[in-house]
Amino acid sequence: MENISLPKGFLLSSINCEIKEGIKKKDLGLIYSEVPGNAFGVFTQNKVKSAPVIVSMNRIKNKIAQAIVVNSGNANACTGEQGIKDALTICKEVAKMLNIDENLVLVASTGVIGKYLPMDKILPKIPELINNLNREDIIGFEYSIMTTDKRPKIISTHFEIGGEICTITGFAKGSGMIHPNMATMLAFIISDINISQDLLELAFKEAIEDTFNMISVDGDTSTNDTVFIIANGLAKNPEIKEKDKNYENFKNQLTKVCEYLAIEIARDGEGATKLINVKVINAPDIKTAKILAKTVVSSNLVKTAIYGEDANWGRIMCALGYANCNYDPSKADIYLGDILVAKDGIYFHFDEDSAKKELSKSEITITIDLKDGNFSAQAWGCDLTEEYIQINAKYRT
Amino acid sequence: MENISLPKGFLLSSINCEIKEGIKKKDLGLIYSEVPGNAFGVFTQNKVKSAPVIVSMNRIKNKIAQAIVVNSGNANACTGEQGIKDALTICKEVAKMLNIDENLVLVASTGVIGKYLPMDKILPKIPELINNLNREDIIGFEYSIMTTDKRPKIISTHFEIGGEICTITGFAKGSGMIHPNMATMLAFIISDINISQDLLELAFKEAIEDTFNMISVDGDTSTNDTVFIIANGLAKNPEIKEKDKNYENFKNQLTKVCEYLAIEIARDGEGATKLINVKVINAPDIKTAKILAKTVVSSNLVKTAIYGEDANWGRIMCALGYANCNYDPSKADIYLGDILVAKDGIYFHFDEDSAKKELSKSEITITIDLKDGNFSAQAWGCDLTEEYIQINAKYRT
Repeated sequence: MENISLPKGFLLSSINCEIKEGIKKKDLGLIYSEVPGNAFGVFTQNKVKSAPVIVSMNRIKNKIAQAIVVNSGNANACTGEQGIKDALTICKEVAKMLNIDENLVLVASTGVIGKYLPMDKILPKIPELINNLNREDIIGFEYSIMTTDKRPKIISTHFEIGGEICTITGFAKGSGMIHPNMATMLAFIISDINISQDLLELAFKEAIEDTFNMISVDGDTSTNDTVFIIANGLAKNPEIKEKDKNYENFKNQLTKVCEYLAIEIARDGEGATKLINVKVINAPDIKTAKILAKTVVSSNLVKTAIYGEDANWGRIMCALGYANCNYDPSKADIYLGDILVAKDGIYFHFDEDSAKKELSKSEITITIDLKDGNFSAQAWGCDLTEEYIQINAKYRT
Repeated sequence: MENISLPKGFLLSSINCEIKEGIKKKDLGLIYSEVPGNAFGVFTQNKVKSAPVIVSMNRIKNKIAQAIVVNSGNANACTGEQGIKDALTICKEVAKMLNIDENLVLVASTGVIGKYLPMDKILPKIPELINNLNREDIIGFEYSIMTTDKRPKIISTHFEIGGEICTITGFAKGSGMIHPNMATMLAFIISDINISQDLLELAFKEAIEDTFNMISVDGDTSTNDTVFIIANGLAKNPEIKEKDKNYENFKNQLTKVCEYLAIEIARDGEGATKLINVKVINAPDIKTAKILAKTVVSSNLVKTAIYGEDANWGRIMCALGYANCNYDPSKADIYLGDILVAKDGIYFHFDEDSAKKELSKSEITITIDLKDGNFSAQAWGCDLTEEYIQINAKYRT
């Protein structure tokens, strides 16, 4: 959490509205930029889209935004016309008090599906939300978007473009209903960099492809997944208009931010005790590498074996086999950490004690060498534990 | 288990070979027909196929068989050339002692992946296996194919064709690594009916499509899934050669047998406490109905909600939304038992106490009415519990 700070011109706020009856945790947050910024959003591919996703998908077509209002505790999904009306009302009230065009306000929600937002609790609190805007409420804002998350997920990166220091800061919430299909959670990325909208969008899409889209907690793609980026230009660097070294620098920094947040979401999956990183190397094409990495990291049986610290590589081979892509499984070598456990798709004599020691770590890397090309990909997930069951069986999340 | 008996001309045997070191459970079984029968097999779609699957896929091309030898405790998967050689050797030894052509012997295995079969333990026991053949070892044979299964899965049906009583008897093992993709476990169906090979194959494929292919325990498609049917004709009914009423009668009886075994596999999924039956009705086409039913029954979040007896219908909507097919989720009505919990894709006021009572049952039916056509399908699965995690984390299965 060192070096966390806001890009120039951004303010945050967070308050508690008791969106979940009797829960005192902060549950309404606001990001505000003093000037409108170039913006872009990526949303769930689920056919059942929450009201805030529908509203924001429409708004982001303008590719410009100045504020993001978010609540936790209620997803405002499967709420029909009333849900859309509620999301629009919140945006309108926030815009009015900020004295900006309501089309510049984006909205996101996370929490239980199928309940109407308690508007009687939210609307009277909006003045307080606006009045509290400041540059220090970084942790508070993060807590306001968290649900079953155990750890805040925030990162800042600082870099120089044309003599000016630029900052990118990212916030995310994850936990359950996490499975790669475009953006699979909420994440908000803000920057003061001066960059054309086209290049912002391009860099953002590419960064998401290798980061947020390569994680899985439980195979369930949410109705509310949303990732927003706003870049307000207040770093005053010469505008990035071409794919030059400044663009590459920005894209690398942005990817670093997205990768950090994606890994933190995987690490903090509901009930998780271990982060799992699956690397597929030497694949015949990038699509095959990605599908295989995601399939292995999503397998319930691989996840339970890792939880049990059992070097059960047969389950990895099995998952590779049912992935829907073309390659030759009989060439695959499998490593747990640096330990070769299967060679050419079959058993390789390995030391069980060393494997056990490797699996006792809190971060497990599984490397699958297909020896059939030059493409590689990695995916991140977590183990599957009794606590995941308890969290999801006992509470209506 | 009433009325369980063998079709005419079939014998069974089962013994213990300690295929898993120190485990005294029966682990080698044999089905034998006094005469060769028309036969067919359906196998896993996993690219990583076990040695017995590779051997049997090749043999079944003849569409005639007289014996099936099966072991539990070791999958003989990811064992390369040695695995194939071992499977062939077992078939050859069995054929030699039975004095039949070795191409008439099918083979199947289930258990841990990636270990060679302990041939030194199996081969010396084959004479005992053959000598023990009898018509009463029905439960013994079933136990010899079970792994983490808690309940035997056996059914017989008796019906008349052309004045002769015909019998179909089915055996299955399920438990983990169960997910719809052709046959997803081991099942052996034997009958004395006299039917042409073509019609046997057709009825069998159709029966599997709506039964074994519509169950899921954990989303992992095994390397060893196999379903065999052998019909030896010893009921001496006039041969069924056309799609007449006798064919329909047989197909219905066969489907009943497959459906029973498939449901029992779902009910006895690893760690399961409840059977879940998802019915999709009034869908625009059969493919959509099937995909939606399978997707809902496979969702970890739906499964944990059912375990927790929580009427969390939002998770059902969410799963419908990420299923890969075309339909309009905003028309969907959802019922738990007979209780309407969502109407037109959104919240419908229902009595939580009644829903809780419905969910306290050991069999839960979820009905999804798409109100958009005339097609329906159903799928079966089970809840996801702490015990699933414990079974799969602690033991190398």
